[in-house]
This record gives sequence, structure tokens and C-alpha cells, in this order.
Amino acid sequence: MRYKARALILLPGFFMSTDQKSIKKVVLAYSGGLDTSIILKWLQTTYGCEVVTFTADLGQGEELGPARDKALLLGIKPENIFIEDLREEFVRDYVFPMFRANTQYEGLYLLGTSIARPLIAKKQIEIARATGADAVAHGATGKGNDQVRFELSYYALEPDIKVIAPWREWDLTSRTALLEFAEKNQIPIAKDKRGEAPFSVDANLLHASSEGKVLEDPAQDVPDYVYSRTLSPEDAPNQPTFIEVDFVKGDAVAIDGEALSPASLLTRLNKLGHDNGIGRLDLVENRFVGMKSRGMYETPGGTILYFAHRGIEQITLDRGAAHLKDELMPKYAELIYNGFWFSPEREMLQALIDKSQEFVTGRVRLKLYKGGVYVVGRSSPHSLYDQDLVTFEEGAVAYDHHDAAGFIKLNALRLRTLAKRARKLA
Amino acid sequence: MRYKARALILLPGFFMSTDQKSIKKVVLAYSGGLDTSIILKWLQTTYGCEVVTFTADLGQGEELGPARDKALLLGIKPENIFIEDLREEFVRDYVFPMFRANTQYEGLYLLGTSIARPLIAKKQIEIARATGADAVAHGATGKGNDQVRFELSYYALEPDIKVIAPWREWDLTSRTALLEFAEKNQIPIAKDKRGEAPFSVDANLLHASSEGKVLEDPAQDVPDYVYSRTLSPEDAPNQPTFIEVDFVKGDAVAIDGEALSPASLLTRLNKLGHDNGIGRLDLVENRFVGMKSRGMYETPGGTILYFAHRGIEQITLDRGAAHLKDELMPKYAELIYNGFWFSPEREMLQALIDKSQEFVTGRVRLKLYKGGVYVVGRSSPHSLYDQDLVTFEEGAVAYDHHDAAGFIKLNALRLRTLAKRARKLA
Amino acid sequence: MRYKARALILLPGFFMSTDQKSIKKVVLAYSGGLDTSIILKWLQTTYGCEVVTFTADLGQGEELGPARDKALLLGIKPENIFIEDLREEFVRDYVFPMFRANTQYEGLYLLGTSIARPLIAKKQIEIARATGADAVAHGATGKGNDQVRFELSYYALEPDIKVIAPWREWDLTSRTALLEFAEKNQIPIAKDKRGEAPFSVDANLLHASSEGKVLEDPAQDVPDYVYSRTLSPEDAPNQPTFIEVDFVKGDAVAIDGEALSPASLLTRLNKLGHDNGIGRLDLVENRFVGMKSRGMYETPGGTILYFAHRGIEQITLDRGAAHLKDELMPKYAELIYNGFWFSPEREMLQALIDKSQEFVTGRVRLKLYKGGVYVVGRSSPHSLYDQDLVTFEEGAVAYDHHDAAGFIKLNALRLRTLAKRARKLA
Amino acid sequence: MRYKARALILLPGFFMSTDQKSIKKVVLAYSGGLDTSIILKWLQTTYGCEVVTFTADLGQGEELGPARDKALLLGIKPENIFIEDLREEFVRDYVFPMFRANTQYEGLYLLGTSIARPLIAKKQIEIARATGADAVAHGATGKGNDQVRFELSYYALEPDIKVIAPWREWDLTSRTALLEFAEKNQIPIAKDKRGEAPFSVDANLLHASSEGKVLEDPAQDVPDYVYSRTLSPEDAPNQPTFIEVDFVKGDAVAIDGEALSPASLLTRLNKLGHDNGIGRLDLVENRFVGMKSRGMYETPGGTILYFAHRGIEQITLDRGAAHLKDELMPKYAELIYNGFWFSPEREMLQALIDKSQEFVTGRVRLKLYKGGVYVVGRSSPHSLYDQDLVTFEEGAVAYDHHDAAGFIKLNALRLRTLAKRARKLA
Repeated sequence: MRYKARALILLPGFFMSTDQKSIKKVVLAYSGGLDTSIILKWLQTTYGCEVVTFTADLGQGEELGPARDKALLLGIKPENIFIEDLREEFVRDYVFPMFRANTQYEGLYLLGTSIARPLIAKKQIEIARATGADAVAHGATGKGNDQVRFELSYYALEPDIKVIAPWREWDLTSRTALLEFAEKNQIPIAKDKRGEAPFSVDANLLHASSEGKVLEDPAQDVPDYVYSRTLSPEDAPNQPTFIEVDFVKGDAVAIDGEALSPASLLTRLNKLGHDNGIGRLDLVENRFVGMKSRGMYETPGGTILYFAHRGIEQITLDRGAAHLKDELMPKYAELIYNGFWFSPEREMLQALIDKSQEFVTGRVRLKLYKGGVYVVGRSSPHSLYDQDLVTFEEGAVAYDHHDAAGFIKLNALRLRTLAKRARKLA
Repeated sequence: MRYKARALILLPGFFMSTDQKSIKKVVLAYSGGLDTSIILKWLQTTYGCEVVTFTADLGQGEELGPARDKALLLGIKPENIFIEDLREEFVRDYVFPMFRANTQYEGLYLLGTSIARPLIAKKQIEIARATGADAVAHGATGKGNDQVRFELSYYALEPDIKVIAPWREWDLTSRTALLEFAEKNQIPIAKDKRGEAPFSVDANLLHASSEGKVLEDPAQDVPDYVYSRTLSPEDAPNQPTFIEVDFVKGDAVAIDGEALSPASLLTRLNKLGHDNGIGRLDLVENRFVGMKSRGMYETPGGTILYFAHRGIEQITLDRGAAHLKDELMPKYAELIYNGFWFSPEREMLQALIDKSQEFVTGRVRLKLYKGGVYVVGRSSPHSLYDQDLVTFEEGAVAYDHHDAAGFIKLNALRLRTLAKRARKLA
Repeated sequence: MRYKARALILLPGFFMSTDQKSIKKVVLAYSGGLDTSIILKWLQTTYGCEVVTFTADLGQGEELGPARDKALLLGIKPENIFIEDLREEFVRDYVFPMFRANTQYEGLYLLGTSIARPLIAKKQIEIARATGADAVAHGATGKGNDQVRFELSYYALEPDIKVIAPWREWDLTSRTALLEFAEKNQIPIAKDKRGEAPFSVDANLLHASSEGKVLEDPAQDVPDYVYSRTLSPEDAPNQPTFIEVDFVKGDAVAIDGEALSPASLLTRLNKLGHDNGIGRLDLVENRFVGMKSRGMYETPGGTILYFAHRGIEQITLDRGAAHLKDELMPKYAELIYNGFWFSPEREMLQALIDKSQEFVTGRVRLKLYKGGVYVVGRSSPHSLYDQDLVTFEEGAVAYDHHDAAGFIKLNALRLRTLAKRARKLA
Repeated sequence: MRYKARALILLPGFFMSTDQKSIKKVVLAYSGGLDTSIILKWLQTTYGCEVVTFTADLGQGEELGPARDKALLLGIKPENIFIEDLREEFVRDYVFPMFRANTQYEGLYLLGTSIARPLIAKKQIEIARATGADAVAHGATGKGNDQVRFELSYYALEPDIKVIAPWREWDLTSRTALLEFAEKNQIPIAKDKRGEAPFSVDANLLHASSEGKVLEDPAQDVPDYVYSRTLSPEDAPNQPTFIEVDFVKGDAVAIDGEALSPASLLTRLNKLGHDNGIGRLDLVENRFVGMKSRGMYETPGGTILYFAHRGIEQITLDRGAAHLKDELMPKYAELIYNGFWFSPEREMLQALIDKSQEFVTGRVRLKLYKGGVYVVGRSSPHSLYDQDLVTFEEGAVAYDHHDAAGFIKLNALRLRTLAKRARKLA
């Protein structure tokens, strides 16, 4: 127990817990970049433990080959290097279930970063089990939400796993200190990494997010150079693009009639979104750790998907189902944002949401134009929209408009009773 | 009681209730158009009662003078003609309170029609009291939501008022029958009203909505000629427009630094929205009376206001407050949509929402471009955004990132306990 | 359409809809009592249709044999008499799922009447299909909730079924008129039915409810003679009774170690509850049809079950799961009370609730004493209660109380930021 | 920053933060008991700071005089001893507002401990301001909820206050160590405090709670000697007691016609509850810090108040208001339990709740009998219960039971549409 330790000399590692001192093997979420390479080395030198690297392709748009090379260069044994293409699993088992709920955090954010963390954590735990590792480590900082998302997922899957969060432990608290450590440990530093990045980026197949430095003043515009996934609306084509998206049980399965796997479909939507300047969001959000932060999100395909899904639900989902989903969505979004993907309450909500999607099947036509997504048509073999019911003329249909009188009268009854009381008191 | 009546001859009015037969004076929500003119005459001939007309300017964009002339022409006494400009009251006491909640029905609809009904109903009741009328009447059909909204409001304010809903009572169930009735009763018919309108419109300062006929197939695009309040995004300027909106306690008070009354401000935003192709919505929604319907909404200024308000809340509203609001918004929206503005539960929710807005004060900068509204900056003397807290470097600030370790550990505790149970059972 | 009909002579049945006039065969929910016997005859004479009777044993405590005899006497063909013991299905598929949610309407009522209606309706529809009937009928009055529950269930299962609700249609609106009709139609009238009952009763295996007449003044005590299912607490034994209830996945399966079928178990609990004066409730509730009503409920076994289920959940259900259930329970209760058992939103909530019950397995010990139910012990192989975690001394356990400091600090961060703003403004 | 410190010798106080080392004056929540006396001394010796004691009478049932004497004995200056009778403020501003919501945590617990903490914290902060203290301290342990409640309240009221939580900081982690410290520092130890208490107690005017040691096994009965506030139901009188409680705007104001101040009224109810064996609760609950704990609560008067308040609401509160309150109650309870009394979201919910109570005025008659509380009558000048509406006979009242047909038909419309889809798909 660190607070009770009594020691004359503070050796490196003093502030680590007793548990952590005895770490034998750690699975690190490793991107191949400078920061996680420094972490890799720091783990080796501080803990004297074996490091296993895990590098995932979640659609962040980077080659994974260099990550392997760099890991080898930093002394990781070949059998300890794990590289995996998770794009299909990511979209199928994380992104799509989330989109079934029309999930938006704080009314606007499509949760692109949040939804990727549980999957990475899950894979780290699986590798830890496979390799007999007793610890996992991540490169998230001590002020953000990602540390929470990683660690809650770790603990939910492997309750006794040891967790190392270098950014909360080490004293490499300045850019200079980091670079010194890198140089001292023969970690290659790309030229453009010498200077400090003007913002930090997280990216995967669903989105890219940027925050920090040049974005920190929420009164100032996001500079153009921050955007990487979308053309600006101004630069998008002057003619709209029309597409059709097919859904089966709440998940998108085809674009313009072409069946696509989940990741391929999202990739295609990303291209469409990119080209039409869709999915930029400048947001000040509330972090789980307690402060507000300002970020810029680009979710081109996800933004299209969001509107398309709402479109198909409009004709296939019952009102009671739709309103219940809408009422619970903010809580569901909050759970994902806060890192509780692997929690009973998220799974309960998922059961409820999935139950609602049984007939959310059909086709949505969309217009994409200079940043805008417009649903312009929807059709479904399971449509609940009944033209006979809404037509102005009364026909041989189920609706008798005299029923409305009784409906209103009984709905009004308690209000009338209240009004009588008010009158009596007045 | 109509169901118990026993009569040999069915006279006109037989299907009216006993109560209604004895109506002496009725306050009609009168637009001056053909339909409500027919209603006016029908009330006179069917009930033999005195008719009081109430015509409100809610910003629907029509002259009110002709309504007065027409009422006189149809035999309404001058003292029974009430015309009122309600635009400021409408925006101040109905639109703005609703926008404090970021209200969207079914995720998308800004409730432009729903929010106007309670005010009209309230005025009818006030006029009924002032003129000693014992009934009110409206021109809403028997299949829509508006009949519910009008009548729930009537009853909530005056529990014993008699309500006449001609569309549910008369047998003028075809266009032909209506026109015959009009001709027989010397009601002038404008040339363009001879044919049947290809869709019906409701309009006020917040929005215009269209539904029916050409819009009834939700798979088909909304024809261009349906839009009246907005340029198409394609026709909007190629250069973005930037504006600043100032808020005080949750309500917009100024544009580009110029203080404006509520209605003037919304009028200004409508112009900006119109010019930039903002606020079109093609929606299939769930009516309170039980069926789905497809409508087209144009809410140019309201759409800008929605995003602007979210923008200012982002820096001035606490997370706990923001999330609670977001969770309750769907219910609040449903209440307004369903016509329960004058209900205890709507008022309770309003008390909660208003309580949250005390510090929602500041300035939002927005970019308007070809259908899109983008918040690009926000600032406030009451900002909760603390740059010191989010900056990557750790400074002399309140946040100690080691706290995060404990925070995560305790949040994880129950998840770890669950995982241990799962492991035990496996 | 009745409102448009034009007829010189009002024949019996005039106020029925055209549809109903052509009814060929109707399935009546038939208790064998005077009221439903009158309905039976009234259906025959008014509609000239074949009547199929359905009599269910839901544990109301009456013999079903007489119902058969009486139906025969009233001219029902033997093949049109359906009698079924639904007790097991009732408890297994309706009562138990509802109790998984700890369902209480308006904080107190265990929904004994509400939960029985969907099952009866479902069976009527099944019989209608089997016998080729085109209509169903029930004996619920026009002011209560039961008419809604029956009819919403009918329509949800068979959308084009014709529904006859005699109490809303006929003119037998006084006791005298009813008795006259009975006499005229040779319906036997038990001596004690001559006078008017001082209250009306509904009963099944879950509860007995009483309302009306002597109960109508909510300021007056419920008279002793109204109670039928419970001893008064004063008359219950002076010594407490201790029992143990075992649960598996949220459902009770055994009492004092003896495995019991659902209906047998509830029957046993009813006896225990009866003897110990448990489960009386004097309530003024809000009906779906808009008014308040006062009822008296006796739910002896259900009350024990409610507390027992809460007891076992306390040690087996995670906090996140438990709180989510608690938040959604009022809505779930409202749906059942209002008659929406067969609705997508009830089924979605059920999916969520059932998901939570996977590990709600174990034993609860209860003390029953003069109206009170006290959980005095619970144990489970799936317990999440960890004595090591809560003991005052710090041991070799997962909990480090220094983590609490960080936990509090980050939870406090937004509150501190708010306080700083408040101070700045002061 | 403690994690970065580099020091050769670990002096006492090393694990305190730099901030805390410089503490000048601390306001301690001081009970006068052994534990807080040890804390008092420990603060003096460890921090070398001036200690201000605050002792509140919240109705815990202890004399405050000895606390003053003991503080003096331990060297506290007279001007640094603050003793205050908070009973009226406690009940009026904390207990009553909470009871307006019918608040129960996890369905059962009336939050007696939780609701007292914010008030104590508020007073400590006020005294800190008045005396120029820069820190506050409390005697809550590192595993419980109370530390969270105290500290969140401190920070919400005074964002830069320094907080000392001795139980998380010191190394007096065994009973022996505590007693040694006490003896070494001349702190008097009552004879009965030598041994270890078999459970710990918290008490105030609302309740007494016990936990720990003999209560830690949730399968074992609570021993009789743990109860201090109530007779056992078995020992309560064999005759029921009947009382009347009057409410004004949601708060109890009189018993049996005698107007009483909030604290006097609760004291009276406590006596009635005590004598009739009312308000015992054996509970396993979920703590905010992540584990389950088992406690025993006695809330005699509060239990009566809970049922009485539900009783008066039954006739004075509208359905929409009542159901909204019920839906939000679990969240409100969670906020109070977790320590967020001074948070925007709790205040927003309070605004909503208080808004609902405007007409919750009237009289409730209750029967108290051997542990049970039974509402047996309610009346109010503001009653919404309308006997004319519920009576079986149809009279000259507002309710036309034919309206029910239309009401049901429109409520069924979407269900019928769903059923038609299901049939089509089958």
C-alpha cells in the first residue's frame, strides 16, 4: 500500500503500488507512434517486465507494418507482437449496435472515440490470457475519458488484472522530458514529432477527433488544417449526391443496392460523407472526469448512417417503441461515453433496443449536399405507415374520426377536474 | 345523451349532444380563409347561435384586414370580431420556453405547429369569458393532432366550455359538398380555391408545415413547390454567412449585437435561415391519435436558434443539469406534441428546465451555409469551461491526474465484483 | 357510420355500428354470474348471433361447474362452452414476469386486476379463431380500466376483431332494469343478488379488489366485511411465522425448501399471507380513463413475493442494473395498468428486465407478523455481497480507501467549478 | 504533489498533500465521542493547526454539553467551540423537501443518514468562513458513503476549501492503535469504549442506522439489541393507534389537529412510530463507492410520514404530476444518497417536485399497528377525487361512458397496425 510505505530512499517505482512492482508481463495497446513507443520503453525500464504489444486496425487509416517493425526494433519478441484487423468486428459488434439507438452524446456527438475503447480493451485482455500476462497498459492521459473507458473495460472483463497508466505514473510531464527519454532510449523520432503537435488526434473507421492546443479556446474557430476526414462544405460538389441505404433489422446492409459487409459499408459512407463535406462537429462537451473540453469531430459516414437509420425507423417503428428508445438514449449514450460498455445496465438497454429493431428493415433514399444529409424517401415491406389512415378523405378505413371526440374527452377529464379545482380556489 | 335518444325524425343537429343544441354564442378560431368561413356559416345555420370570430397574427404571413372584412360580410357583428397580434407573446411565452429545453419531437421536429395551438386556445377562452360565449370552435380535422391540442387546452382552462369541432360533426365530407355549401351560403370562393389544394399548410412565426396529398407517399420526394419559407440549399449563396446570437438566461436577446424583441429576433433569424436554405425537414412522424403521417416542415429561424442554444449551453450549463435536461426532453416534447401544454406535468418540467437556465448567458457565433448551421465559437461571462483544467500540461490547477486512478478504481469496483462472479460460474 | 345514419325509425340496435349489426358469433368472457348471464342473453337477443362462452379459472375461488350448467341453461351449445384452468399460465407468464420488475402502480398497488386481463383477452381471441367467431365481448363497465385492458389486448392480437362492450351500449342502466331483463329472459337470480351489492369485487390468484358504493368516500374506512382474502392484522397470530423462499432467475420456485409450481407457490403464499393479515391496501388511484377511484386490494401472497424478490435482488443484482430497473418500473407499471401488455414498449422493457434477472437466484428468509413482511436474511451462490469489501478493517482486499479521495475529487470537480462561478458572480 | 515528491526521510505527514501541510485552522465535525476526539487530537499533532469544533444537535438524542466540556479539555479555545441546535432547520429544509418526493433509495430506504450530511457540511463551511479557517474535517471512514456526502457538499459550497479525512490518512488502522493514541494523548476513554463496538450507529431526528460487525452477514438476523428507536412489533400494543396528520403544500403541519413545528412534528411521529414498532428496515444496499453493504435502519416517524404523504397526494395530486414524480424519484433518491444535494440537477428536480405540491393540502387518517402503517382515510379542500365521476350510476356528470369507445379505439390504432403487419408477415 503506497500510502503506508516507509522507506528511506525513493527508488524509481516507489509510487507504484506493491502489486505493480511485481509485474511480469504487460500487454500494451501500441500504435507504433512516438508516445506509445516511449511507453513501451518506459514499461521495460521501470517495471523490468516483458512487454507484449497489441496493435489494432480499427480503420484509423495507418499502415500497421511499421508498428511491427518498430516493436521489433524496441526489443519486443516476435511472438509478443500482436496485430489484428478489427474493422469488421468494430463496426458489426460496436458501431452498429450503438447506431440502433440513434445514439448522440449531449445531443450531438456520435461517440466515435468512446465506442472503440471497449473493443481494444477486450482484445488486450484476450491477449493477456493467451500470453499469460498479468498486466495491461494504455497510452491515455490522466485527464481524459479514455483512461476510464480502457480501465473499466479491463476490470469488467478480468477483475484482477493489473493496470498500468504511464501518463498518470511517470514524471515525463513535459515534451522536453519525453524527447529526452526517447533519445536516451534510442527511440526513433520522426522529424515532424520534434515540435509539439498543435492538436491531438484519435481516429478509427467511425470518426476522427481532434482536441487540445489550437482548439482549446471554444470562442475560436477550428482551423481548417485540423480537418482530415471531410472536405469543407464549401469545397464539396455543387450538385447533390443521392444514395439509397438498405437496412435489415436496424443495421445497414447495402448502398445503392450493393450488399456490403459492415466495415465496407461504413467505408463507403465515409467516402460519400467526405466528398460532400458531411459530419463536422465543433463541440464543447462534458467529460466524465469532471471538466468541459472542446473537441472537433468528423464522422462522415456515421452522420449519414444516423439520419438514414432515423429515416427507416420512421416508417417501421411503432410510436411506443420509438418514444421509449428516445427517452432512454441519453442514458445509453452516457454509459458508452463514460466507459460502461461492459456493464449490466448497458447490456440491459441493448436488449431493449435490439428488441425494437426486429422490423426495422427497408430502404432510405438520401440527398447529400454540402454538409447536409436529407432523408428524401423511405420504403419498407414492414412499413407501419398506412396511406389509407392518413388520407384526408374518409374511406373504408379503420379510422373513424368520431372516435377522436371520445379520445379527447377522456384525455381531458383530469385537466377539467384540475380546472374546476382552480376555479373553486380562485 | 345521443345514444339513448329515441326520435322518429332525425332533424339536423340530431347527432349533436343535448348540450350543444343549446349553444348561444361560440368563439371561432377564424382565419378568414374558405374553410373557416364555411365553418362560420355552418355554425350559424346549424346551431342558430351567435358567432364571435377570433383571428390571430402569429406570424403566418397573412394580412388580417381581409379576415375582418369577410367576417363582416358573413354577418358577424363588429363587436364580435376579435383580431390580435400575438407574435411577441407567442415567441416570448411559448417558443422561447420550449427552446430552453432543446425540444425535438422524435429526434428531429421542432414542434412549430404544436406550440401555437395552446396560445390560440387560451385567447379563445379569454374572449369567450369576455363576451359571455358558452362555446368555442376550431377548424381542425378529425384525424390530426390539432383537434386534440385545441380541445385539451380549452378544457384545461375552462372545464365546462362546450366545444364544437365541425369537421367531426358535419357531413360536408367532400370538396364538392364544401363548395356547394359555400355557394349556397354566399361565401366568396377565391378562384384558386375551386380546385383541391395539393397539400395543406399551417404557418406561424416559427415554421410552416405542409402535409397531405402530394406528400402522402413517404417514398416520394417533397416537390419543390411545397417549400415557402426557405430557399433550397442549392439556391443559397455560395459564401457562408456568419452571425452572433446573444443569450440571457436561456433566451436569445440579440443578433450581431443588436438587441431585439423575441418576435423581431425570430423574424430576423427566419430571414437568415430562409436565405441560407436552413430548416427543411421531411419527416414521417407518429401522431397522438395513433397513425403515422408524413409532413414537411420549414423552421428556418428555429433551426438556427436550436443550434445556437445548444452552443451556449455547452459552456454555461453543468453536466448534471445538461444530462437531466436531455433525458427529460423527449417526454417534454411529447407533452407539447400531444397537446398537454396546460398540464401540471408540463409545468413541472418547465420549472425544472427554467431552473437550469439561470446562467445560460453569453454569445454564440454561427456559420450558416447552404442548409447547414455550424456553431463556430461561444463565449460567456458565466462560462464553466476552464482552459486551465483541460490544457495538456499540468499546472497550478485544481486537477490532479492521480485522482483519476481512484476515480476509476471505485467506479470499477462493482464491475470487478461482477466479473469475479462470472468467473466463478464459468 | 352511426353519425351519418338517416333513419325514420330507431330500431333496437340502431346505435350499434353497421359492423356490429352483422355479427355472427361472439366469444364472451363469461363468469357464470348474473351480470355476464344477462350479457349473454342480451347478445343473443340484440345481435341475434351465436354466443360462445369462455370461463377461466384464474384462481378467483369459484367453482366452474355451475358456469357450464348455466351456459347450457341459457341455450349455449355444448361445443360453444369453453372452460379452462389458467392458473399456472397466469402466474408463470404474467404474474412472475411482472414481479421481476418489483412492479407497483403509484408506489403501492401490485396490479392484481390489470395483469389478469391480457390473458383472458388472449384466450378469447384464440377461441374466436378456433370457432370462427367474428367478435368478442366482455362485462367491464364504461368507466373503468378493464374495458381498456380487454380491448387493447383484443385489438393487439386480432386487429379486425369486432368488440362488443354491452355496458357501453345497452340501456340497462339501473339495477331494476337489469333484474327486469333477467326475469323476462328466464335468467335465474340468486336471492342475494336481488339487492344491490354494497361493493363490486374482482378476484384471481394474485388478489381480490373491491370498489364502489361503500368504498366511494375516501375519507371513510373500508368496512371489515369487504375483506375476503386476509385476516385482519389484529386477528393474526401473536407469534411471527418464518418462511424461506427460493428464487431462480428472478422467479420464486420453492417455499421452505419445497419446490412448487408457480400457481401452487402463489397459493401457498396466499395462505401464509391470509393467516398473517398481510397485503391489505386502501388506495385512491388514478384511472387511465381520467378519474380517481378508491379501491381496496388484498394481495396476500403477492405482497410477500414483492418483498422476497427485493430481498434476493439486494445481494444478486448489480447497482447499475438495480437502479435502471427502479427508474423504469413506474413506466412499466403504468403500461400494465393502462392495458398495454401486448405492446412493443412493454415487451422491450420486459427484455430489459429479464436480462437483469439471470443471476437473481438464492434464498430469502422472511418474517411474517400481523400484516408485516420483513426480510430477515438472504443468501445466494451468486451473491455480489462481499464481506471482505465492507468489513471495517482493511485487509487483503480489493478496496483501497485512498482511492476514495480521487473518486470524490473528480466527482466534485464540476461542483467546484460551479461554486467558483457562483463566487465570481456574488 | 505527493507522487512527485522526492525526500530521503519520511516524516509524519509525508503522505499529506503539500496543501494540507500548510493548514492553519480546521473546522471539525465533532460529536464529543471517542473517535472524533481522537481525530481532534490527531489534527492538532499532525497538522499543528488550530482546531474549531462544530457539534450539531440533529436530534441524535445526545446531550451536547459534554461535547463542549470535552473540547475544552482537549485544548480547544472557547471561541472555537460551536454548538448548534439544527433540528428545525434539518426537518424543514432537508427532511420535508425530500419527503415531498416520496423518496426511497432502492425501493425501501428513507435516506435518514444521507439527508443529514449536507446540512452538517454547510454549517462547517459557514463556520470556516466566520472563523477564517482554511480546512474542514470529518470523521467518516474511507469505505462509506458519508465521506462522499460531506466532501461533495464542502466543495460545492466552498470550492477551494481544504478537506481532511483522517480515516483515509492516518495509520491508526486498528482499535488497539486508536486506543493507544488516545491514551498517549490523554483522551478520556469511557469504559464501554474499551472493547470494540459490535456495530456502528448513526442517528438523527429522522432515523438511526446501524451497520458493521454483527450485521455483516446478510443471511443472519439483526440481533434485537441493535434496535434503539423502536419497540419490536411483537412488543407493541395489541390495540391499534389512530392518528390524523394534516398537510399544507406537501408538508406535514399538524397531528390530531395540533399544529406543530417541523421538528416537533417529527418528534411526535417518532414517538408514535416507536411505540407501535414502526419503521424497522433490514437492507442490503449498493453504496456509491461501489460495494454492497448491509444495514439496519429505524425510521419510525419517517415511515409514518411517507405513507401519510402518499395518502394525501392520492386525492390532491393529478395523475400526470404523480406519475412524473414517481418516474423521477429513483434518480432524485440516488442523488441524495450519493451526496449531490448541492448540485444543479438535485435543485432542478426539487423545483419540479415543489411545483407539484401546491395543492397537496388536507388530512390523512392512519392506523398504526404492530409495525404497520395503514392509510384509512383522506380528505382535502383541494381534493381531485370526484364521487360523481366514479359512482356506478350515470348521472348528470361530465363522464359519458361512450367516450371510452373512442378513447380505446384511438389508443388501439397503432397496436392494430402492428398486428396487421405481424399477420402479413406470418
